[in-house]
Amino acid sequence: MALPTEIHLTLPDWVPAFVANTPCEPTDEGRMAYVLELGKHQVARGTGGPFSAAVFDLDSNEVVAVGVNRVVPTHASIAHAEIMALTLAQQALGVHRLPDTCGLYSSTEPCAQCLGAVPWSGVGRLVCSACAADAEAIGFDEGAKPEDWPAQLEARGIRVVRHLLAERGAALLTSYGGARY
Amino acid sequence: MALPTEIHLTLPDWVPAFVANTPCEPTDEGRMAYVLELGKHQVARGTGGPFSAAVFDLDSNEVVAVGVNRVVPTHASIAHAEIMALTLAQQALGVHRLPDTCGLYSSTEPCAQCLGAVPWSGVGRLVCSACAADAEAIGFDEGAKPEDWPAQLEARGIRVVRHLLAERGAALLTSYGGARY
Repeated sequence: MALPTEIHLTLPDWVPAFVANTPCEPTDEGRMAYVLELGKHQVARGTGGPFSAAVFDLDSNEVVAVGVNRVVPTHASIAHAEIMALTLAQQALGVHRLPDTCGLYSSTEPCAQCLGAVPWSGVGRLVCSACAADAEAIGFDEGAKPEDWPAQLEARGIRVVRHLLAERGAALLTSYGGARY
Repeated sequence: MALPTEIHLTLPDWVPAFVANTPCEPTDEGRMAYVLELGKHQVARGTGGPFSAAVFDLDSNEVVAVGVNRVVPTHASIAHAEIMALTLAQQALGVHRLPDTCGLYSSTEPCAQCLGAVPWSGVGRLVCSACAADAEAIGFDEGAKPEDWPAQLEARGIRVVRHLLAERGAALLTSYGGARY
C-alpha cells in the first residue's frame, strides 16, 4: 500500500475577509483584541475549537500570520491555533525559525504541545489571554506543563505576558461551551 | 496584504521507494529496526535532521505512516519526525485521534514539543531508541521535559518502551554529526 507523504492544513475560508476587514492597533492590547475577535468569528462559524492566535512582527507592526484551531476539520491533533499561526508565519517568510522580533499572541495559554513548540519557533514574545484553568473548565486537556513554564521561557529569552484582556479571553471559551475539539 | 492560509508539509521523494522495498518484522524490535533504517536513508540523502519515526497499527501489523525530520526543507519548526508520522497517519485515516491500537516508534525520545503532542495523537504505545542525551550530544535542544515523563504518559494509558536498539539509535545520531536542524 502506498503510504501518505503530504500533510495539508488549512484555515477556514472566512479568514481572508476577516484579515482584510479588521484593523489592529499596534499595542499588546490591540493585538490581543484582534486575536480575540478572530476567535469570536471562529466560534460563530463553527470551524474548529474556540482558540485563536496570531504572529505579529513587532518591528513593522504587521500581522505575519493568523491561526485558529483546526484539529477536527483537518484531521490533525497538531493543528492548534498557535501551531497554525507559527507554521503559516514560517512558511510565509521561508524560514524554520522566526526572527525574535516576532511575537505570538494567543487567546489561551499554550497547552503542553504548543508550549514545547514555542522555543523552536523563534518568537521572542508570547502574549496570552485566558488561562489553562479556563480551558479546562470547558473540558479541554492542557497536558503536563511545568509549574514555572513562564520562567523557563524567559530563561530562553522569550518574554511572557499573561492574562491580557483575560476576562474577554475567558468569555470566548465560555461562549463555546462544552463541545470538545 | 493577503496572509497565508495553507500549510504544506511533505516527506522526501525517496520515501515511497523505501516503503515499497523495506520489509518489517511485526515485533517491537522489527518495527524499530525499520524506523532506524528509515533514519539511515534520511542521513544518507541529507533531506533533514537525523530523526525518523513511524506509526504502526499493532492489531493489523501494518505501517500506517512514516515520518522524518523536515524542519529545514519545509520551513516548519513543528515538522519533527514524530509529528510528520502522527499527522500523516491521522490524515490518512481521516481522524483527529488515532485508535489506541496504534503505536508511535521513534528513533530518538521525543523533545518537549513532541512529548506534548503524543497524548493528543491517540496512540496507545510509544517506543523509542536513542535517548535525549544522545541528541543533545550532537547539539540538539530537547526542551523542558518532566523528569518522570514516561510515568506521566503511562498514567494516561500510553505504554512507553525506551532504549530499544539503543546503540543503533545513538549511532544514527553520531553518523549525522554536529550539523544542526
